[in-house]
Amino acid sequence: MKNLQILLKNRPVGIPKPSDFELFAAKVTNPNAGEVLVRNLWLSLDPYMRGRISNAKSYVNPVEIGEVMVGATVGEVVESLHPDFKVGDKVVGTLGWQIYATSKGDALRKIPDSQISLSAYLGVLGMPGVTAWIGVNKICFPKPGETLIVSAAAGAVGSTVGQLAKLIGCRVVGIAGGVKKCLHVVEELGFDACVDYKANNLHEDLEIACPNGIDVCFENVGAQIFDEVLSLVNPFARIALCGLVAQSSAIEAYRYLNIRNILVNRVRLQGFIVFDHMADWDNAVSELSRLLFSDKLKYFETIANGLDSAPEAFIGMLQGANLGKQLVRLT
Amino acid sequence: MKNLQILLKNRPVGIPKPSDFELFAAKVTNPNAGEVLVRNLWLSLDPYMRGRISNAKSYVNPVEIGEVMVGATVGEVVESLHPDFKVGDKVVGTLGWQIYATSKGDALRKIPDSQISLSAYLGVLGMPGVTAWIGVNKICFPKPGETLIVSAAAGAVGSTVGQLAKLIGCRVVGIAGGVKKCLHVVEELGFDACVDYKANNLHEDLEIACPNGIDVCFENVGAQIFDEVLSLVNPFARIALCGLVAQSSAIEAYRYLNIRNILVNRVRLQGFIVFDHMADWDNAVSELSRLLFSDKLKYFETIANGLDSAPEAFIGMLQGANLGKQLVRLT
Repeated sequence: MKNLQILLKNRPVGIPKPSDFELFAAKVTNPNAGEVLVRNLWLSLDPYMRGRISNAKSYVNPVEIGEVMVGATVGEVVESLHPDFKVGDKVVGTLGWQIYATSKGDALRKIPDSQISLSAYLGVLGMPGVTAWIGVNKICFPKPGETLIVSAAAGAVGSTVGQLAKLIGCRVVGIAGGVKKCLHVVEELGFDACVDYKANNLHEDLEIACPNGIDVCFENVGAQIFDEVLSLVNPFARIALCGLVAQSSAIEAYRYLNIRNILVNRVRLQGFIVFDHMADWDNAVSELSRLLFSDKLKYFETIANGLDSAPEAFIGMLQGANLGKQLVRLT
Repeated sequence: MKNLQILLKNRPVGIPKPSDFELFAAKVTNPNAGEVLVRNLWLSLDPYMRGRISNAKSYVNPVEIGEVMVGATVGEVVESLHPDFKVGDKVVGTLGWQIYATSKGDALRKIPDSQISLSAYLGVLGMPGVTAWIGVNKICFPKPGETLIVSAAAGAVGSTVGQLAKLIGCRVVGIAGGVKKCLHVVEELGFDACVDYKANNLHEDLEIACPNGIDVCFENVGAQIFDEVLSLVNPFARIALCGLVAQSSAIEAYRYLNIRNILVNRVRLQGFIVFDHMADWDNAVSELSRLLFSDKLKYFETIANGLDSAPEAFIGMLQGANLGKQLVRLT
């Protein structure tokens, strides 16, 4: 049995290229005592991965050249020498860009049987959904009537953030790239407005979309988009700084102009990473599941087929080619 | 009786010039029923005033051309038509750059009789001291053993911040301009280290002074000094953004390079202004007074003589000429 893997071949400069990755056929490792062998069914592609393949100092070490690319997966246990797992169990974990992987089980979560598709556990019920839930409920605290803005609004995190804030009663404004995405955000996700940052009129368009200023910001993108948001924050605004994807592929670091508004408007800017909030994970998933079952929360997926399509899909996602959660189907 | 006043004559561009101000001899206004007439004894000069004479959007309207300059004062009631005040009462208020002022009394605080000098109520027991106390105790929450850094460390706010943090058990590092100030900060105020930002080796000097990184920052200055601090923050650092005096006189806005560290290190950056925390004022003053009486807190003053010296003293303070609290003696 061969295990296909995608390895990091070069550290990308700027936007990654397909040649920065390498498809590799390895031998499947047999599980040791206390381990399981998992056959991955779905691979998640996420913006944070761009940071993980750069050398910039971050909260974890980068993927090394020649290592399997990091990534969350949903799979099925095909062999178990672990007392808590049996063959056929569906599990979500971080087993990387590969078809087979062994695991000691400590970082695997079993997926309960339900009507919910397995892939949702990589999106709305996985890291992106929980990130959205934590950011809204534990970092930003939006109140009814406040204006919340979220960038990458058509993505897995942003789409969930905006819907959660709508349920709270906020005016919800998205930022997304292109007319098609903005229409999706307003018409299918139910946001009040969506600003197309590609329309080259960002500041004025934000002013029009946020006539009462910005009380809450959930920031995924950074650089000019975030800087313009800072120019419109209201007194006592709260900002969850969750991602800076526009900076992670940039050759030159962005230089922020509007930091003074944080002082003048007594803004709270909180950097956060979902993995600091694991104690809230189960609660978040259970609330998100309840919203899904009651049709109060929608999610969308963009699916690439086959492990070998992962690099191109990843590169596309970094440039905004996806709508909703970007996945790779591995079966 | 003549009332000398200093009026704003021009909106300064960059560092203010003496000719941006005008000495004016007005008639003393008689108090109406419910008002007091105060003879000011001390005028406080503070960095925030630079913001108040610029046109940049801020939390309050700017001083208009031709208006009396804004400023905190300590004075003596010389005529009272207000039931709560009698002639001879010492009061602290915001009566501006002038010798006499009438007041309805609502924004005046009576100064209790004590051994403490009246001028302290404009410094360590006034807005700067309370700002320091709030920032340390309500915004930053430094813990024993953590490294706290404070810019403008020889100033009225910074000197108090550092001493409060030392009492908590932090490693306290100041940033100040020039060897003389840095020696003062270490030898007289008891900080563990002080970095001279004028030595042109800011990044390396900060690294040496903060071998375990920065856990807490109380920021008064902004621009390059703050940006370098951001480059050294530890995970879960807390930053109180209290002032950006380096930006307020700048012709071109500073562009921040190290915002990404706020995300990567899950930093909390909180803009704050002491006037949002009035409920804590009395508690702060009483704790600061207790520390003064028990010789656990020191303060230093730089005193200019006469109202007409206020513009030059203010301009000097913006460029770091003062040590400790900058005051103008009006008697």
